[in-house]
Amino acid sequence: MADTPTPAFSVRIRVRMVNVPGMLGKLAVAIGEVGGNISALRGFEVKTATLDEDIVVNCRSEAHQDQVRAAVEAIEGIEILEFEDRTFHMHQGGKIEVLSLAPVRDVEDLSMAYTPGVARVCMEIAKNPAAAHELTIKRNTVAIVSDGTAVLGLGDIGPEAAMPVMEGKALLFKHFAGVDAFPVCIDTKDPDEIVETVMRLAPTFGGINLEDIAAPGAFDIEERLVEALDIPVFHDDQHGTAIVTLAALENALRIVDKKIEDIRIVVAGVGAAGVAVSKILMNAGACHIIGVDRQGAVHTGREGLNKSKRWFAEHTNEEDLSGPISSVIAGADVFIGLSGPDLLTREDVLSMASGPIVFAMANPNPEIRPELIQDIAAVIATGRSDFPNQINNVLAFPGIFRGALDAGARRITENMKVAAAKAIASTVRDEDLNPLNIIPSVFHPEVAPAVARASAEAARADGVCR
Amino acid sequence: MADTPTPAFSVRIRVRMVNVPGMLGKLAVAIGEVGGNISALRGFEVKTATLDEDIVVNCRSEAHQDQVRAAVEAIEGIEILEFEDRTFHMHQGGKIEVLSLAPVRDVEDLSMAYTPGVARVCMEIAKNPAAAHELTIKRNTVAIVSDGTAVLGLGDIGPEAAMPVMEGKALLFKHFAGVDAFPVCIDTKDPDEIVETVMRLAPTFGGINLEDIAAPGAFDIEERLVEALDIPVFHDDQHGTAIVTLAALENALRIVDKKIEDIRIVVAGVGAAGVAVSKILMNAGACHIIGVDRQGAVHTGREGLNKSKRWFAEHTNEEDLSGPISSVIAGADVFIGLSGPDLLTREDVLSMASGPIVFAMANPNPEIRPELIQDIAAVIATGRSDFPNQINNVLAFPGIFRGALDAGARRITENMKVAAAKAIASTVRDEDLNPLNIIPSVFHPEVAPAVARASAEAARADGVCR
Repeated sequence: MADTPTPAFSVRIRVRMVNVPGMLGKLAVAIGEVGGNISALRGFEVKTATLDEDIVVNCRSEAHQDQVRAAVEAIEGIEILEFEDRTFHMHQGGKIEVLSLAPVRDVEDLSMAYTPGVARVCMEIAKNPAAAHELTIKRNTVAIVSDGTAVLGLGDIGPEAAMPVMEGKALLFKHFAGVDAFPVCIDTKDPDEIVETVMRLAPTFGGINLEDIAAPGAFDIEERLVEALDIPVFHDDQHGTAIVTLAALENALRIVDKKIEDIRIVVAGVGAAGVAVSKILMNAGACHIIGVDRQGAVHTGREGLNKSKRWFAEHTNEEDLSGPISSVIAGADVFIGLSGPDLLTREDVLSMASGPIVFAMANPNPEIRPELIQDIAAVIATGRSDFPNQINNVLAFPGIFRGALDAGARRITENMKVAAAKAIASTVRDEDLNPLNIIPSVFHPEVAPAVARASAEAARADGVCR
Repeated sequence: MADTPTPAFSVRIRVRMVNVPGMLGKLAVAIGEVGGNISALRGFEVKTATLDEDIVVNCRSEAHQDQVRAAVEAIEGIEILEFEDRTFHMHQGGKIEVLSLAPVRDVEDLSMAYTPGVARVCMEIAKNPAAAHELTIKRNTVAIVSDGTAVLGLGDIGPEAAMPVMEGKALLFKHFAGVDAFPVCIDTKDPDEIVETVMRLAPTFGGINLEDIAAPGAFDIEERLVEALDIPVFHDDQHGTAIVTLAALENALRIVDKKIEDIRIVVAGVGAAGVAVSKILMNAGACHIIGVDRQGAVHTGREGLNKSKRWFAEHTNEEDLSGPISSVIAGADVFIGLSGPDLLTREDVLSMASGPIVFAMANPNPEIRPELIQDIAAVIATGRSDFPNQINNVLAFPGIFRGALDAGARRITENMKVAAAKAIASTVRDEDLNPLNIIPSVFHPEVAPAVARASAEAARADGVCR
């Protein structure tokens, strides 16, 4: 399953072929024989004796790109004019730009947008600081802050190397919810310094999205910033995942016809993300959660618990069960994996209550490979885009910040998160709901507006708005 | 001169008039009688018995806007539908947005711009940090950093209130030189903390433009950041002014036919800006500079000199002159004012060498009002847009950063600044050069490209490029 050709490794090959019938066929055969997937042909240009064309080929790896290149080069009558790695091409020069919303055509524009007119706007904000939320980019701008210590599955790659992810996130904020987001990758791993830096940056921004900061630091950093700042602070790795997990669970429960109050849930992975997921499930009504790590169930009798495990011991596992995952999973309705590959076995799933729901979200390799339990699980979800039911944060963060900014929320409350989850779930209509479709596509046009409306309403109901 | 109606205080008034001849005349008379300048009529819409129209009126102040409103309201047959302060309207919601350079149309785009494809780009940068300058926004993005302590002439108004200026600056960067600039207003006034914060932010940016940070802190902050970072750091209040001053002086000397090596220059204002201006003049060949403050000429015999005054004592005033400005100005060729209002008298200018050049750049009120010396000075320049020959930083900073980014410069050298000044000066052609036109308009299309080329070339010649 790891080695499907993917656009992530796609190449654009511009070829010049002698203009005789059958050349394109030869080309397609050669690429197919080395396992490349041709996903597009374009830029067709006839030049009498020859013709030029772009071939887009999905590959499996960079080595595979080289194989495809060699296969094309080997065909007589075909010459490679350009050979471009499409992913690198897309990132060339960065993925976002800063654009003017005010015209700068002439001296008149300049004297309003800049000096001397701008001084009036500055003085208005100096007199009335809340006006910054109307008269500056604070109105619509979120910082995407990372220290680069836990980027995707890549680990601590540093702030420079984290930038492409944060720029990508900025694209998504803008595309899905019209939020202006700016990447801020900072050169320190010290939680105190990260908190301090973000506090110093806060005047510029209307919200802070923390991203890819290693645990356990990230946990505290968020807590301290939420406390210190009067703009929304949101650690997406925790809460984005939590919101989309709840949305998926709501719809999975519609399929198996169970109520969240009644079910038993095993959460594998008891770090910050596990706490965030468990909290939102409890806020949505879940009463029976057990957290497990490699040592088994987390319970009050265990010693040496860190902060998040202590939270699990104190707030979940009301029967104080102990033992390995294979014992506590028996009879459970739902498995939620936020841990690592191959934690769960087919036998574990067989021991669950009828209609087992398995969310195996470890990335890139899930807690159990979906193909192993397709016949016995009622619903399966993963974190991967190449399986049905992808638990994808993109469904949550753009809309939740849109709602928070629109409502003038000072923070993102638990109710806003639950409301966002329900909004995501509700975009899958009854007639479309089935075990392979519990979660909307990230391109579903109603998702972000629905999330924005729901979270703005919840913010107002919670009384956290300016 | 302070009270000319200006677009900075302009209003758009949408009026509904009864549709009879002469109404517009009445309106124009009423506005003219209270001193408003009608600068545009538009949005004309006839509705049988009435007609609607937008009247744009330049006013002198907010109180004057009220007067204009009252005058219009008093006219029988005219009703005000909308009354909008155009400057505030332009700033509503902020003046910049963050836009995507990569498409997000479908799953294929997403898997290249974001996960999983983005991981490849991240790893490339992790392996080869220099690639950040090609594969992230670092390629073209500058931070405009301020602590809000010395904003325009407004003083210490704080980081939130400084944002409109920094956003305006971002507009100018983009408009004039295609540089993506992002405002970063930080919530600390401590120079150590400012240095530390900018160092932590550096991975994100390809350059740092320091702005409106109070002296003497700004001076050290720049020095320390230039030392610490391998991207260009530029304190615009010092060097932008210095570059444009040199450009203006080059052209003023063309008019009076003197050589920079031969002239005597009095610089009033011996803080960071005075040092920057004097340094660039010396790098361009000036040999005879005397700095003055309220106590008179700065010379080695004076006690209790701060850092920048010590610089003046050590590097200028080779004859170690002392005494008030009125004594050292006698026989000087050039006066450069970076101080405060009404420092210079007509008698001072009369005592200068023949063809006196007076740059009275204190803002908003110059060291001497130009109308007092129009008949005796050969060339006059100020910092104001409502007089000829405005010394405006906008001529320098967009192009100099464009050049630095294009060349991959690690810092902005003295030669780059001098080259930028000469490029600005050269855009005024011989046939256009006259005492009222020594400096190009900020809208002159050749300025930024010429500055960019010149500073990039100088960077390469200085060997400071990646």
